[in-house]
Amino acid sequence: MRIAIDAMGGDNAPRAAVEGAIQAAGEYGVQVYLVGLRSEIERYLGEAAKGDSRINIVDANEIINNDEAPVSAIKQKKDSSMVVGLKLVKEGKCDAFLSAGSTGAFLAGSLLKVGRIKGIDRPALAPIIPTAKGFCMIIDAGANMDSKPKNLQQFAIMGSIYMEKVMGIKNPRVGLLNIGAEEHKGNELTKQSIELLRALDLNFIGNVEARDITEGACEVCVTDGFAGNVLLKGVEGVAMTIFKLLKEEFMKSAVTKLAALMLKKGLKAFKKKFDYTEYGGAPFLGIDGIMIKAHGSSDAKAIKNAVRQAKLLYDNKCLEIISSEISKLGADNVE
Amino acid sequence: MRIAIDAMGGDNAPRAAVEGAIQAAGEYGVQVYLVGLRSEIERYLGEAAKGDSRINIVDANEIINNDEAPVSAIKQKKDSSMVVGLKLVKEGKCDAFLSAGSTGAFLAGSLLKVGRIKGIDRPALAPIIPTAKGFCMIIDAGANMDSKPKNLQQFAIMGSIYMEKVMGIKNPRVGLLNIGAEEHKGNELTKQSIELLRALDLNFIGNVEARDITEGACEVCVTDGFAGNVLLKGVEGVAMTIFKLLKEEFMKSAVTKLAALMLKKGLKAFKKKFDYTEYGGAPFLGIDGIMIKAHGSSDAKAIKNAVRQAKLLYDNKCLEIISSEISKLGADNVE
Repeated sequence: MRIAIDAMGGDNAPRAAVEGAIQAAGEYGVQVYLVGLRSEIERYLGEAAKGDSRINIVDANEIINNDEAPVSAIKQKKDSSMVVGLKLVKEGKCDAFLSAGSTGAFLAGSLLKVGRIKGIDRPALAPIIPTAKGFCMIIDAGANMDSKPKNLQQFAIMGSIYMEKVMGIKNPRVGLLNIGAEEHKGNELTKQSIELLRALDLNFIGNVEARDITEGACEVCVTDGFAGNVLLKGVEGVAMTIFKLLKEEFMKSAVTKLAALMLKKGLKAFKKKFDYTEYGGAPFLGIDGIMIKAHGSSDAKAIKNAVRQAKLLYDNKCLEIISSEISKLGADNVE
Repeated sequence: MRIAIDAMGGDNAPRAAVEGAIQAAGEYGVQVYLVGLRSEIERYLGEAAKGDSRINIVDANEIINNDEAPVSAIKQKKDSSMVVGLKLVKEGKCDAFLSAGSTGAFLAGSLLKVGRIKGIDRPALAPIIPTAKGFCMIIDAGANMDSKPKNLQQFAIMGSIYMEKVMGIKNPRVGLLNIGAEEHKGNELTKQSIELLRALDLNFIGNVEARDITEGACEVCVTDGFAGNVLLKGVEGVAMTIFKLLKEEFMKSAVTKLAALMLKKGLKAFKKKFDYTEYGGAPFLGIDGIMIKAHGSSDAKAIKNAVRQAKLLYDNKCLEIISSEISKLGADNVE
């Protein structure tokens, strides 16, 4: 597999991208294409990597920053690492694109430069959060506002395929994010969507409340992008706040400091579980190419993990499966 | 002040309601009216309380359960503690009503039996969550679905008045829950609402992301009931999950158990801060009477605290202030 990596995106660019790419090439045997300023990239490429035929540099001399308006940045900065990377996928020169840069530019660029899978109305950004029992994909987490029931139906199909093929979860449980478990609850969107979701050949478990998501009620949480974004960021926020206050609690006295030391190992593993940067990549599903948005604060390991995700999407032919399932849906809808 | 208390609502009824009412009568000098099955209430009334003129029993021989359809339960069970309590307010015999029973029945009953403040289109359920810096009211947290910009404007006014008058926060910061801080972000509702909110004579700080709420970005978080419910329950859920997993971490070995013991006091206070039952009452603002929905798991202390909230609403004439501010808004809108 050939993967284009935006070397200039993210808080730790280009170092994290370059080091992550080298590790991924070694571990997964993929061809990596580091896109960005050649001199910057070469600074972090060791001598061994320079002679490695799996590691390539593709020149791009502009950078899109987080504070730029996404659509105009994509349109104007044709020589940016984001646009050049996306074009490698569009032109069939790479099979996947990975970026830790501006989420807005990544979403806009994927739509404008690569385009949608036929039959998909609204591609969805689908991050995965840790739960007490494993993982849950939130689809959509903010790529779309004001979704329609039909969009939610497609989100359910894409999310289920991803969790099964990439995360290895057999028959993943799909839930509709709602304000209560009862059938009649919710807003116009959820009321109109529940029957459409039930009609799919998925393990749909009905409405799921936000408080049950982190407990592990389902593996795919279907929602419109506004509520999904609120859930994702709310969960991130309270986890951050709790860990910060917990740390203050530990620093209060000699006794609490000693206790913290005794708990160090366990707490570190525990905090890691709730560290949302550990889960690195959110796939942008529904785009006609494998697109992974890595967290802005990704380190080399997170980039490497995101490459692994892309490879699993590729090896398991997820885009082809999505395309085929969506086309069946179209035929069903006509009946 | 005279407050009607639903003695039959909540997981710990009637004990928590009765004991909380006795404590509240003693501490705040309010007249309490315990509504429910006389024999059940009397079981928990001590001899002293039986002779206390501040403590009264009002007969109601039916109970509305959590699993009943709210509207039909309110219409059919005319002799339920919920309906009888609400009627005491409607008829001017009490100044406030407090229940730890079914949220759905409480909301439906307040609307059907007591009604709205003139000019209020949609009353809002407005719980308060702890943040790293203090407290934040989420308004609306689920009383309404598919809100309009005008509703959000009224939520902002009511929330601001509550946080100032009841919580004692001078000039509370009001934020609009959104998926990003930038002005142009969001769904149709937030895009249409932001200028309406800015036009109010409030300390409006613009868009606020879910992750900033628990960090303490604002004291009033204005949102439609669907997203507000997702935020509230998502935050509750992750806090619960983290504490559960943390406990498991503490139980792993003799060393971690000892460490947990050393941290016991601090952790208890800390957990309490994030224990959402501690904040007991959510006011249902916009109803033409003081309505407090206590958490279903409220104990006597939570009931007592909820009575205190009701008293602060009463003493500070919050309903009159809300009514006056809303009528000004009407006049402004006509201009």
